[in-house]
Amino acid sequence: MNTIHDLIIIGSGPAGLAAAIYAQRAELDSIVIEKSGMSGGQVLTTYEVDNYPGLPGANGFDLGMNFRSHADTLGAVFVEDEVQSLEKTTAAQVAGAEEETELYQAAEISATDISADEAGKLVHKVVGAKGVYYARTVILATGATHRKLGVPGEEKLTGSGVSYCATCDGAFFKNKTTAVIGGGDVALEDAIFLARMCEKVYVIHRRDEFRGAKSLQKKLMSMDNVEIIWDSVVEEIQGQWQVSGLKLRQVKTEEERILPVQGVFVAVGISPNSGEFEGTVDMERGYIKAGEDGKTSEPGIFAAGDIRTKQLRQIITAAADGANAVTSVERYLTED
Amino acid sequence: MNTIHDLIIIGSGPAGLAAAIYAQRAELDSIVIEKSGMSGGQVLTTYEVDNYPGLPGANGFDLGMNFRSHADTLGAVFVEDEVQSLEKTTAAQVAGAEEETELYQAAEISATDISADEAGKLVHKVVGAKGVYYARTVILATGATHRKLGVPGEEKLTGSGVSYCATCDGAFFKNKTTAVIGGGDVALEDAIFLARMCEKVYVIHRRDEFRGAKSLQKKLMSMDNVEIIWDSVVEEIQGQWQVSGLKLRQVKTEEERILPVQGVFVAVGISPNSGEFEGTVDMERGYIKAGEDGKTSEPGIFAAGDIRTKQLRQIITAAADGANAVTSVERYLTED
Repeated sequence: MNTIHDLIIIGSGPAGLAAAIYAQRAELDSIVIEKSGMSGGQVLTTYEVDNYPGLPGANGFDLGMNFRSHADTLGAVFVEDEVQSLEKTTAAQVAGAEEETELYQAAEISATDISADEAGKLVHKVVGAKGVYYARTVILATGATHRKLGVPGEEKLTGSGVSYCATCDGAFFKNKTTAVIGGGDVALEDAIFLARMCEKVYVIHRRDEFRGAKSLQKKLMSMDNVEIIWDSVVEEIQGQWQVSGLKLRQVKTEEERILPVQGVFVAVGISPNSGEFEGTVDMERGYIKAGEDGKTSEPGIFAAGDIRTKQLRQIITAAADGANAVTSVERYLTED
Repeated sequence: MNTIHDLIIIGSGPAGLAAAIYAQRAELDSIVIEKSGMSGGQVLTTYEVDNYPGLPGANGFDLGMNFRSHADTLGAVFVEDEVQSLEKTTAAQVAGAEEETELYQAAEISATDISADEAGKLVHKVVGAKGVYYARTVILATGATHRKLGVPGEEKLTGSGVSYCATCDGAFFKNKTTAVIGGGDVALEDAIFLARMCEKVYVIHRRDEFRGAKSLQKKLMSMDNVEIIWDSVVEEIQGQWQVSGLKLRQVKTEEERILPVQGVFVAVGISPNSGEFEGTVDMERGYIKAGEDGKTSEPGIFAAGDIRTKQLRQIITAAADGANAVTSVERYLTED
């Protein structure tokens, strides 16, 4: 017999873990499917988090672990698997299915009998690499990944001067010299943000004009401590333990030079981790279209955290999304 | 000369304090105006908070203090005053005004010179009982207050069996007997929520039918461990250190009886603390109309936390609101 859960949460970053916490407290029969056995998402690789209210100066790894142990304390069930797709089915079909896997049985999740009343109801089938899972509702919380420059030094110095989020890390570079790489809205917003606290901000862009909004460009140009370096790309991020400089190449003249900086903010785009849900729910530039309540285009499927369309991608807003999505799940289960 | 801040935050609950944290990290010139010298809002009087992700089993008072000290660490400026109204003015008018008070000078807030360029720009004037304050943007974060029954025992036993939030406190009453007081959507949702974890849930309503949605009524009626007590009001909440029972009066027969319960969830309404902003921004049943980004009907005025129209009023969602509102403030200041 197959189990139909109230809720499957896909992803175990702040959004997924907050959803797990709220789901446990609401006594929903839920499981969390995570790709690796390590919960926390992007937080884990963040050196210091100073903007999660109530926990100033938290170490990113510790904060991720705190979230996970909070969910563990409340009895959340975690399953390690890589989700491949979502399909629609009904309770009756699930009852007849033979797909239960050893992995799934091993998780010792309490089974729900399927009553005649429920037989025709919509059930979501989550297809993983190792097994299949069924639930009345699903919260997609697979997050997003900042695009990398892919240059030498970048990976080594991430968290040691290389950052992908000015709102998160800008305050650590007060009175220092930094560079923003990129030319879109986010790059310009980051540079304006940083110019308020840094001694000097370079904006390095590979073209000779910005893609970002004109109003942002105007504001940026009006700031005395901002210098724009056009037609240039980063060849290497230099530094032994901390960022010390950038090796730049002027793409028209092919000239190379070293620019001394203490921080680099890479703003060349974000990739939502939504590939496996394409065609399942409506998206906008790869983000799942969903408001604050997490409702997607599909009944019973909700989105939370960086994966959804929203203005601010932060730990605190991801966690709030998890709570909101569970509230929407509860309402859906009540009404259905 | 009068100071025009980038931002004034009104209220120092989780939304206001999260906004202060984000504003400080964004190096905005901001102040927080709070009614009493004690920050934290409703959190302060919460016995235990177990759903703020990352801080399981937190004491409400401590959590409030954590939020405040986080803001303090980042240099947030707090002013104690009771806001009476908001008015619109311009930088030129402010420069000519003579209203600066001793209180305000005493706060030692850095002054901003008013340039010719800025003279005609919209400035918000915040009128308090003790002084007036000016800023380009305002975040309203004055929260909401749960309506009380106003019966003997209620105040004494709040946090000791009397709760105003099932989502917050329900999990503490697992396998216990509780009563929900009320007949609207929130009361019915609370009862459905509690029925999943409590041994027995009474719903006590002063009328002989519910105001709440039919779908909620149907769900509630289908739950075996729910009993509805119609036409009845609570006369007294009994218990020495913990709630032990309710004295009920049947309003038609005038019969009185004692109902033994271990928890009481009062769901007779919430009053948003928005009176002073009436006529200033658009409202809906007393809540300030604003989406996730906090934008209200008025340019430069934003709302965050329980005061705004939203589906879930929790510490985590209030804190996320504070962060979102500051992002909107930054965008407003950049574009203006």
